Amino acid sequence: MTSLDTSVDNQPKVTTGPISGSHKVYSETPSGLRVPARRIELSNGEHFDVYDTSGPYTDTDVEIDVHRGLDPLRAGWIAEREHDTQLGWARAGVVTKEMEFIAARERMDPEFVRDEVAKGRAVIPVNRNHPESEPAIIGKNFLVKVNANMGNSAVTSSVEEEVDKMAWATRWGADTIMDLSTGNRIHETREQIMRNSPVPVGTVPIYQALEKVDGEPEKLTWELYRDTIIEQCEQGVDYMTVHAGVLLRYVPLTAKRVTGIVSRGGSIMAAWCLAHHKESFLYTHFSELCEILRDYDVTFSLGDGLRPGSIADANDEAQFAELRTLGELTHIAREHDVQVMIEGPGHVPMHKIKENVELEEELCGEAPFYTLGPLATDVAPAYDHITSAIGAAQIGWYGTAMLCYVTPKEHLGLPNRDDVKTGVISYKIAAHAADLAKGHPYAQDWDDELSKARFEFRWHDQFNLSLDPDTARAYHDETLPAEPAKTAHFCSMCGPKFCSMRITQDIREYADKHGLSSVEAIEAGMSEKAEEFAEQGNRIYVPMAGDGEADGNGTP
Amino acid sequence: MTSLDTSVDNQPKVTTGPISGSHKVYSETPSGLRVPARRIELSNGEHFDVYDTSGPYTDTDVEIDVHRGLDPLRAGWIAEREHDTQLGWARAGVVTKEMEFIAARERMDPEFVRDEVAKGRAVIPVNRNHPESEPAIIGKNFLVKVNANMGNSAVTSSVEEEVDKMAWATRWGADTIMDLSTGNRIHETREQIMRNSPVPVGTVPIYQALEKVDGEPEKLTWELYRDTIIEQCEQGVDYMTVHAGVLLRYVPLTAKRVTGIVSRGGSIMAAWCLAHHKESFLYTHFSELCEILRDYDVTFSLGDGLRPGSIADANDEAQFAELRTLGELTHIAREHDVQVMIEGPGHVPMHKIKENVELEEELCGEAPFYTLGPLATDVAPAYDHITSAIGAAQIGWYGTAMLCYVTPKEHLGLPNRDDVKTGVISYKIAAHAADLAKGHPYAQDWDDELSKARFEFRWHDQFNLSLDPDTARAYHDETLPAEPAKTAHFCSMCGPKFCSMRITQDIREYADKHGLSSVEAIEAGMSEKAEEFAEQGNRIYVPMAGDGEADGNGTP
Repeated sequence: MTSLDTSVDNQPKVTTGPISGSHKVYSETPSGLRVPARRIELSNGEHFDVYDTSGPYTDTDVEIDVHRGLDPLRAGWIAEREHDTQLGWARAGVVTKEMEFIAARERMDPEFVRDEVAKGRAVIPVNRNHPESEPAIIGKNFLVKVNANMGNSAVTSSVEEEVDKMAWATRWGADTIMDLSTGNRIHETREQIMRNSPVPVGTVPIYQALEKVDGEPEKLTWELYRDTIIEQCEQGVDYMTVHAGVLLRYVPLTAKRVTGIVSRGGSIMAAWCLAHHKESFLYTHFSELCEILRDYDVTFSLGDGLRPGSIADANDEAQFAELRTLGELTHIAREHDVQVMIEGPGHVPMHKIKENVELEEELCGEAPFYTLGPLATDVAPAYDHITSAIGAAQIGWYGTAMLCYVTPKEHLGLPNRDDVKTGVISYKIAAHAADLAKGHPYAQDWDDELSKARFEFRWHDQFNLSLDPDTARAYHDETLPAEPAKTAHFCSMCGPKFCSMRITQDIREYADKHGLSSVEAIEAGMSEKAEEFAEQGNRIYVPMAGDGEADGNGTP
Repeated sequence: MTSLDTSVDNQPKVTTGPISGSHKVYSETPSGLRVPARRIELSNGEHFDVYDTSGPYTDTDVEIDVHRGLDPLRAGWIAEREHDTQLGWARAGVVTKEMEFIAARERMDPEFVRDEVAKGRAVIPVNRNHPESEPAIIGKNFLVKVNANMGNSAVTSSVEEEVDKMAWATRWGADTIMDLSTGNRIHETREQIMRNSPVPVGTVPIYQALEKVDGEPEKLTWELYRDTIIEQCEQGVDYMTVHAGVLLRYVPLTAKRVTGIVSRGGSIMAAWCLAHHKESFLYTHFSELCEILRDYDVTFSLGDGLRPGSIADANDEAQFAELRTLGELTHIAREHDVQVMIEGPGHVPMHKIKENVELEEELCGEAPFYTLGPLATDVAPAYDHITSAIGAAQIGWYGTAMLCYVTPKEHLGLPNRDDVKTGVISYKIAAHAADLAKGHPYAQDWDDELSKARFEFRWHDQFNLSLDPDTARAYHDETLPAEPAKTAHFCSMCGPKFCSMRITQDIREYADKHGLSSVEAIEAGMSEKAEEFAEQGNRIYVPMAGDGEADGNGTP
């Protein structure tokens, strides 16, 4: 773990400066908005720009002061218009500055962005009290997004650590972060994060509410919860997990599960419902909640409090009963012009993943799905970033809009700085693999650039184009540290004589030398040879037919 | 990296002793074969047995001496019967000792094992000159297997390191290993590995053949290759990658690829074909090859020399043209009673994975598919164990029988001991996730055991049931090192007050106390309440209908 230094004046130090091999660039939209990207300069004189979540921290022209916070980028946009939500504007046919910014970031048409928001198929979580954020969109027709959880707990971690974890997570590509603090100083931690976060911030307000009643769920009240929601809305939280679908009558459906209720919010609300034998106040007061969130343009992330906690419990009646209720609540929220995401599992074996997406889309009017993994198996604690990246890639391909990361410490302990990075990179992989499988042209371009660099032995370009240039470079240097190896036409896996890529280049040169520079030329040359051999009755030289059908049953 | 110690007498030291929390047990088959398993003792007095690939190294009753090698477990079985192959015996209706052993390991009927081998749908790679091996089966109706590559290269690594890597890889679950040595001392390295390996060993003989001609592909001849094959058969190699499908006429199909030919064997044979303008000697002499392999019962692993080296090249004409030829060769090999596996990609985006399995099964008569990953994206060098575990889990679910691991060093350098472990564990995850998705009851049992331990706060059991108990325990101890925390009913993620699992248990206790100990009882109790509320016109308490349809559009 890279520990957090404090500088001479004891100010918390935060990671700044560009990722190696790249630097911040801005493009300008028609109305003059500056949209950031991360530019990777290539050794062949070209460059490749990638989506950039890191905010001003990687801009060498910006001085970072965590006590002052980031500049309020959106303050002017917010001030110059009346209060409404992005959903309200979209439905009214207005392309907001946020949508314009997002269209440039996503390389999409602004009108398409507006339309997806109007349909509720995408959300833009932008609390008007979080003007420091660079708007981002979450929806299945955009790049798949990644969320990183952080937050102190009763057991460990400090405010300074959490702020640096936020900057650290967005540096490596987290599109949003969630502050899940449960210990002391929840308000202060969140204030620091809000003022310094360039990405949307989510919370689970029930955690703070529970702190206020000494951790005893039955003492919770609607009024206390409502005040907590307002406190967080005022601070600028962009989206909130609300477990309003955990109904009293669903609780017994979990009694025979292998792992009962594993969602903290879900179990808190279940305990409250049982203790009072009443319906959840989140459900009975849902319209009031909508009115509060609308005032700030805070997005609902309707929590799956009854999500499965194990492979055995996946896709069971408790889970899907709650999902139906979330669908009901989605429509109510939309009537209030409040944006909605739907949270999903958790722990699901591969063959049961698709059903989750299909059912969510059907029941919740295609509201963006936001899943935690899911883990495709439970037998590998300490590797749950991998067990869950497997599920996350698939569920992203099927249409999930945002993937909540899982770190190697999941189920075991709190993630440190290295774990956060590992979690984020694992999930950028899953999200990118999903983008590729969905046919996103930008995703394919990125892969192709890296593959070309690899094939041409442009080692530095290969490192710089990777999701984690530092680690790629370090791994290469472990075996071949010398600088000449960075331009060598071989690598440590095969050594100089055996390199298949070098041999392929030799093949191309050979083909050139013999006038076989194109497929057509080689095939023509081969046809002649083929005729010779065919005359000798040797079938192996029969030219391949147009459909490539060349198999047979003769013995060669 | 854990470096390799050498003891006082300078003998290479190899990792021995059981994985923590478990020990070796043997069951006995009807004819008296001792079949190993790894027994995990649980704190509730029960135990859970898992498939064990580690051989005598984890048996505390066996003394390991790498210079003497392992005991020849199968020597008697081989001596007491005439020469034939497992395929030959299976077709003749004979259940061999190997099949009986495997049936016990896989918890399957011996007759089913025989039938799958007879159909060519499964292979048992057991060279009669490798009597030290514990037989294993590779086929889609059995547990998905994992291969780990190792081998020295011209650039680095020693014989001692490779033998320890073998024991290390099988310790963590590698079902087979491949020795891909390309540097000096290939023969000696392989001899050490063969005599000490409890799992089937595969090779790519063209690598050694190329060493014999100073790394110049055009100097290769059939005779030299044949002698190399015989040399390796004599040593006991169990399966061999043969790139006999790289035909001269397919080479031009790769000219316009983003990454040309990336298989070492494939590029060597392509270079040879072009240099001589002749058809590959592997193809023209294939029947002679079959005769040699049959004599030793060596299994073909027909190599995919034209596999894609990037996302851009996946599923292209070069790849599938070669696959058709591999289908042709599969049928020829089977005519000789030689067992066959088919190697597959490599680099494939998720939406193109399934086609690979379907085509392979169709063209190659359901011969076991053996794939390298595939990587689902190319943008994350240093994390290719993850990019490829995503693809591997999926292709395993679709029917691939064995997954060749990829380590974090793929594309960057040679794996060290830690990388080998990470690669193996990542692939055990992928294989197990595939087993789960295929509905394998044993796989589900394992997940359920771990989930139960997790839910009941049996921390030690959770660690011991995991694929890597040492790392799981270490991660837990990072945050909560004290021994009482191992029995505490909370963990560091939420702290004592917020633990959802603790709250769920409280819910169960509450339900018990109030006579709501079953789903039926709670639902009955709730129906009464529901009626009260229904009278008040409050729809939220309407009892859930049988099909769970409870959504609506009323405002709660």
